[in-house]
Amino acid sequence: MNIRTLHAAPPFSELRELMHASSTDDPELRETVAAILRDVGTRGDAAVLEYTSRFDRLEAGSVAELRVGGDQLASAAAGLDADLLRALERAAENIRVFHERQVDRGFIDVLPDGTILGQRVLPLRRVGVYVPGGQAAYPSSVLMNVVPAKVAGVEQIVMTSPAPPEGRMDPAVLAAAHLAGVQEVIQIGGAQAVGALAYGTEEIGRVDKIVGPGNRWVAEAKRQVFGWVDIDMVAGPSEILVIADDAASPRQVAADLIGQAEHDPDAISWLVTDSARLAAAVPAELEILLALNPRREIALRSLTDNGLILIVPSLEAAAEAANHRAPEHLELLVREPLALLGRIRNAGAIFLGSYSPEPVGDYFAGPNHVLPTGGTARWASPLGVYDFVKRTSLIGYSEAKLRAEAPELLLRRGATWTTAAPFRETEAAIAAAAARAALAAGTTRSAAVAAEVPPADWARALSGESSTRTVGSNCLISSDSKGRAQALRSLWST
Amino acid sequence: MNIRTLHAAPPFSELRELMHASSTDDPELRETVAAILRDVGTRGDAAVLEYTSRFDRLEAGSVAELRVGGDQLASAAAGLDADLLRALERAAENIRVFHERQVDRGFIDVLPDGTILGQRVLPLRRVGVYVPGGQAAYPSSVLMNVVPAKVAGVEQIVMTSPAPPEGRMDPAVLAAAHLAGVQEVIQIGGAQAVGALAYGTEEIGRVDKIVGPGNRWVAEAKRQVFGWVDIDMVAGPSEILVIADDAASPRQVAADLIGQAEHDPDAISWLVTDSARLAAAVPAELEILLALNPRREIALRSLTDNGLILIVPSLEAAAEAANHRAPEHLELLVREPLALLGRIRNAGAIFLGSYSPEPVGDYFAGPNHVLPTGGTARWASPLGVYDFVKRTSLIGYSEAKLRAEAPELLLRRGATWTTAAPFRETEAAIAAAAARAALAAGTTRSAAVAAEVPPADWARALSGESSTRTVGSNCLISSDSKGRAQALRSLWST
Repeated sequence: MNIRTLHAAPPFSELRELMHASSTDDPELRETVAAILRDVGTRGDAAVLEYTSRFDRLEAGSVAELRVGGDQLASAAAGLDADLLRALERAAENIRVFHERQVDRGFIDVLPDGTILGQRVLPLRRVGVYVPGGQAAYPSSVLMNVVPAKVAGVEQIVMTSPAPPEGRMDPAVLAAAHLAGVQEVIQIGGAQAVGALAYGTEEIGRVDKIVGPGNRWVAEAKRQVFGWVDIDMVAGPSEILVIADDAASPRQVAADLIGQAEHDPDAISWLVTDSARLAAAVPAELEILLALNPRREIALRSLTDNGLILIVPSLEAAAEAANHRAPEHLELLVREPLALLGRIRNAGAIFLGSYSPEPVGDYFAGPNHVLPTGGTARWASPLGVYDFVKRTSLIGYSEAKLRAEAPELLLRRGATWTTAAPFRETEAAIAAAAARAALAAGTTRSAAVAAEVPPADWARALSGESSTRTVGSNCLISSDSKGRAQALRSLWST
Repeated sequence: MNIRTLHAAPPFSELRELMHASSTDDPELRETVAAILRDVGTRGDAAVLEYTSRFDRLEAGSVAELRVGGDQLASAAAGLDADLLRALERAAENIRVFHERQVDRGFIDVLPDGTILGQRVLPLRRVGVYVPGGQAAYPSSVLMNVVPAKVAGVEQIVMTSPAPPEGRMDPAVLAAAHLAGVQEVIQIGGAQAVGALAYGTEEIGRVDKIVGPGNRWVAEAKRQVFGWVDIDMVAGPSEILVIADDAASPRQVAADLIGQAEHDPDAISWLVTDSARLAAAVPAELEILLALNPRREIALRSLTDNGLILIVPSLEAAAEAANHRAPEHLELLVREPLALLGRIRNAGAIFLGSYSPEPVGDYFAGPNHVLPTGGTARWASPLGVYDFVKRTSLIGYSEAKLRAEAPELLLRRGATWTTAAPFRETEAAIAAAAARAALAAGTTRSAAVAAEVPPADWARALSGESSTRTVGSNCLISSDSKGRAQALRSLWST
């Protein structure tokens, strides 16, 4: 078995060339997808129907005809093999329980002086889940994408999936959609589905976010609509990095490397070990298991092109190598996985010890299987409830608070051109704040009184040309970026 | 004052055309920036120095010469006007206190059967903060971008800012960097700075994330490096939406609209009110305040091109209009702001009542002023501690747990082609799991025993060709996507 083997030590500069980002810019793809998106954005349902006919060979008189009814979802679940249904239900429950631990309820603090400072956490209102067609449609993927959105409190979840050639969607996928709480399923796919979700059509309400895997048209379309709606990460090839010590089984290591490699020739499987003995034993085990594997061609190509056995001086160095690679999946096949955990900074999901093979965690335990790839675990997270909420800051100053802060906020910093710098772009707003501070000090009535301040007082207030002013306790000063300063006569001490 | 005034009611379809996303695709900009990024990625420091010479007219023999020393930061702070320094310190403290409320410590649960499920929350290791040159460099922006990263626990924060024409950076900006805990400041800007931060050079360590505002070259460069590193949002024009009832002061409303409009001709200021009287009074107040405003040309253009007074049938409808617009800043200038709050779904920051003008909240109160624009508050959040951490899932199955789950996980779902569907892409991994489940059942020693299982047993285990199998309690079955099934003979009951 011809798998690349390297000896290396921190800082692992030799690993850098193995981690180049894939260049995905394809001008023709970009133009084609942009044209489809523009067309769907402009012509709505009519464009969606045309592209569905052209690309998916499905003719429909209206988008409504492409909807899969809620009753069809329910009957798909009812008709499913009982054992599979139960397995899906248990998986959905495990996923739900785990993701409920991620819920952030935000906060609203009311300070003694009446100030309100807070952060509301609210769910997105409507989310689109893209489910690829054909062999890539997995019920587990439906659960992993939909359950966190439901836990977050998303009201409306719409699933789109291209019509399969045989004309009938996988009943397990429909059952998973039903179990997870999807309300709408529409048989459309490709860039046209992404466009319909992002911009909305006559029949399809626009969403706030689009999640779920797809082919390169779908991925490019998601990239292009990002900003108008949110998207999840565009996933790269799947990855595993196994850290193993001399207590690890070469067979088990080999099986787990192949478990990733068989996905895709681009999949990436690395072993990092401090044991030369293990490193030497694994290639033979890979050969044995590959010979038994029905996807051996794919796995072999993956291991030959992208596999790596890295021999490092210590387990600490192994952790450092993992931090460099920032793998999607990290298995710690070592005697004391928890002892090593503290040194791991970058990984999508960590599988601890010999009884936690990746598929157990990936499908069933509860944590999400949508994980950061391509080294993005340095800064990105598994899909979670936090991806389906947004925060809003709350600021409520009381009259007393504004009165107390206004001099600090406005006067002190307005003393010179320099000191006004933090605020130099917002003169009028500061003038408004100053006027209100003044009113707050001068009256206990509402700020509606501001309307009573004659314009002449504002005119008088906004005067002066020099860039530095003497500041009195009854003046508020702000400055513009050109160095002109205006003294706004404060009403509060008059 | 010529400001557009509309009567409207939910569902506010007439607002949609006022909210078109700005098309920012500029092929020439894209190509220029891509070439600079490629060059910096390839040639490192040499390229950075060339572009700095060409674009910023700053000659340096090495990137090291472009560093601003830590002592210079400290002395900038020491030399600052004492009042300004104190104001910056207080602002930094308020920002720190608010953002500490956002800290998520993650969790590790150990279940009674020994299963470990958890989510670690770890800071990004190194973050780049871009600070634009010239008039757009604000100390408050430094605080708002750096303090949340520090609260998150980011170890290294590097600030880049193009050298100003006069050759000396704003001391208030340097002082803010010092106060906030920036360790490195490098006088480089533009796409070349973004490239250096994203890819690293000989002198500049690559970062995990780049935040901070910039011109269109910087924004385009951030877009292009996204995926290799994380970025914050690319901000659009600033926005305010004021909801006011008949108790609001027309002058105050006008001042707050202008406070946003004076930023930029593209800034967007909307008033939404249920009071025809207020709507009628505001334009005259706008005229009065504009006459006094040194940035009246900018503000006037903004209000004429992008301003709106929307008269709605009720405050509930006003909240619905705000939800449609999803503004960056939302002021509730109504008698009972908290009573209306529950109806607001989409806003970056909400300012409650008459004593909470936007600048108070924006600079001083503590919440972040980096807020979602362009309607993205539907799904995006203010910059926060959550933007400087990433999560990692933890999965640790005990021997007992794997033993209990394995039949459910593997056997039941493997019974037919259909039932195997959730797992059909990971045969070898499932085989590995099965082997381990078997080992778990057969021995209390570690899985290293797996190494002792002779290959012949694996070969025996992986046999069978039909797509549906009878499942016995001592068999594990998995199937591939082509319908072939392999029975993996379980070792656990033998």
